Amino acid sequence: MRLATVRTADGRTSAAVEDAGTWRALPAANLGQLLTADERIIRARSLAELDLLGLLGGPLEDARPGTPLPRPAKVVCCGLNYADHITEMGRELPRFPTLFAKFADTLTGPTDQIEVPADVDLDWEGELAVVVGRTVHRADEATAREAIAGYTVANDISVRDWQNRTLQWLQGKAWDATTPVGPVMVTVDEVDPDSGLEVTCEVNGSTVQRGNTRTLVFGPAALVSYISQFTTLRPGDLVLTGTPGGVGMGMTPPRFLCDGDVVRTHVEGIGALENTIRLTRTPPEETS
Amino acid sequence: MRLATVRTADGRTSAAVEDAGTWRALPAANLGQLLTADERIIRARSLAELDLLGLLGGPLEDARPGTPLPRPAKVVCCGLNYADHITEMGRELPRFPTLFAKFADTLTGPTDQIEVPADVDLDWEGELAVVVGRTVHRADEATAREAIAGYTVANDISVRDWQNRTLQWLQGKAWDATTPVGPVMVTVDEVDPDSGLEVTCEVNGSTVQRGNTRTLVFGPAALVSYISQFTTLRPGDLVLTGTPGGVGMGMTPPRFLCDGDVVRTHVEGIGALENTIRLTRTPPEETS
Repeated sequence: MRLATVRTADGRTSAAVEDAGTWRALPAANLGQLLTADERIIRARSLAELDLLGLLGGPLEDARPGTPLPRPAKVVCCGLNYADHITEMGRELPRFPTLFAKFADTLTGPTDQIEVPADVDLDWEGELAVVVGRTVHRADEATAREAIAGYTVANDISVRDWQNRTLQWLQGKAWDATTPVGPVMVTVDEVDPDSGLEVTCEVNGSTVQRGNTRTLVFGPAALVSYISQFTTLRPGDLVLTGTPGGVGMGMTPPRFLCDGDVVRTHVEGIGALENTIRLTRTPPEETS
Repeated sequence: MRLATVRTADGRTSAAVEDAGTWRALPAANLGQLLTADERIIRARSLAELDLLGLLGGPLEDARPGTPLPRPAKVVCCGLNYADHITEMGRELPRFPTLFAKFADTLTGPTDQIEVPADVDLDWEGELAVVVGRTVHRADEATAREAIAGYTVANDISVRDWQNRTLQWLQGKAWDATTPVGPVMVTVDEVDPDSGLEVTCEVNGSTVQRGNTRTLVFGPAALVSYISQFTTLRPGDLVLTGTPGGVGMGMTPPRFLCDGDVVRTHVEGIGALENTIRLTRTPPEETS
């Protein structure tokens, strides 16, 4: 199944499931609330099963997918997780996942514009993202695997000059409304990252990144298990699995995003984000 | 004024203000909700003013302070912010604050036990923490200063062996219920970190850290302003300002916390945390 949080013509949002190119309502304002309210949802595999659970509502008019998980309590990201990207950044294959956090405010919708000040070095990082569907605490890998509700697409758009200001990356990774997520969450029965999903990122129609989730150093279940050793993950939390080679910072000379650039991020079997970059404001700290 | 989130005898929590050694109720379940509901609160300077605003309730029986901000949307921490601690860690004075995030789940109460597996290297980091009282986005330092509701005490208890596994510190800094905060938030009219507040940390009665907030490289207003350049801070958000010299990892040989150790963290003019360490569980990943 393909689930989403859709925005409807009246400006509201609803959890929804795709039904032959249209959207059917599910009983929550968004996918995060749906997963939190009813852990049975992650075992449903068809519209008939959703109907059986009494969850399937009527068709939604003029609905289009927004941010699937608008307010996750935790967004945990893994850096340096594709062998080719690790090599590109000049590092060795890791023993442990390199983890950092984003805020709920960092997320934005699958077709939203991404707006940052004109003088920052903005880079792309297309990624597979994991949606947690069940509470996990100190889970082994098998338990972690069963707690995954599905997969979506993300782009960990990064402000490189800020990221590289200090040893810690937060101030380059957590700019408000810079990480697009969506458009749908595909349930685990329909896609298998361990078998391999192609992840691509295009800028203005040219492919800049191409990788396959088969080559992830730490796969989805391994990441969820590892993170759950120190912090509880709950339904609606997001885990970003890292980006393959081909980021702008790794090019010679480095290439950063310009005003009007269109970034398209695609994961095989899930769908695509398409976000236009807007470089607008001058940072107050430069003008004051 | 000294504000808190108190736990009462019936197991509920309430925002509260100290009144001659007793607690008077304020109309919210905790201090975060109070600050979110009414930004006027950060301008009140006395119980009489709270009463004038219609916020001052009756006395609370058997009340004791818990975590003042139990569910902040953002907890942003600054590392390497005292000149002496920077030297101790073998680094140079920074141009920019080194920032990382914790989750709401990372926080715990001012007298709660701190429980982690027996085989980790647990270290102390006594800190002054800033409570945000007004929404700030791309604020200059003067605006940031006016957005500070008050100050509290925190200890950024760190799992050093996990922290040092990768370049990013998250997996050593975000263990559930390991960062005690409290016991009270003191309003900005009563304490001034720029003039200097002594920060001390004792383990089993012996002082291991002693620093003064006067020597912070980046003071409270500078940190709030800087963070607000990339992400919006809102009432109830927390900013931890970093720790002075004297952490266990910096000792020769390194010293880590043992089962039963009592960590007392004090900031002048605010109060003290007192937390007992419990080293108990064996991590599943070691036994599986």
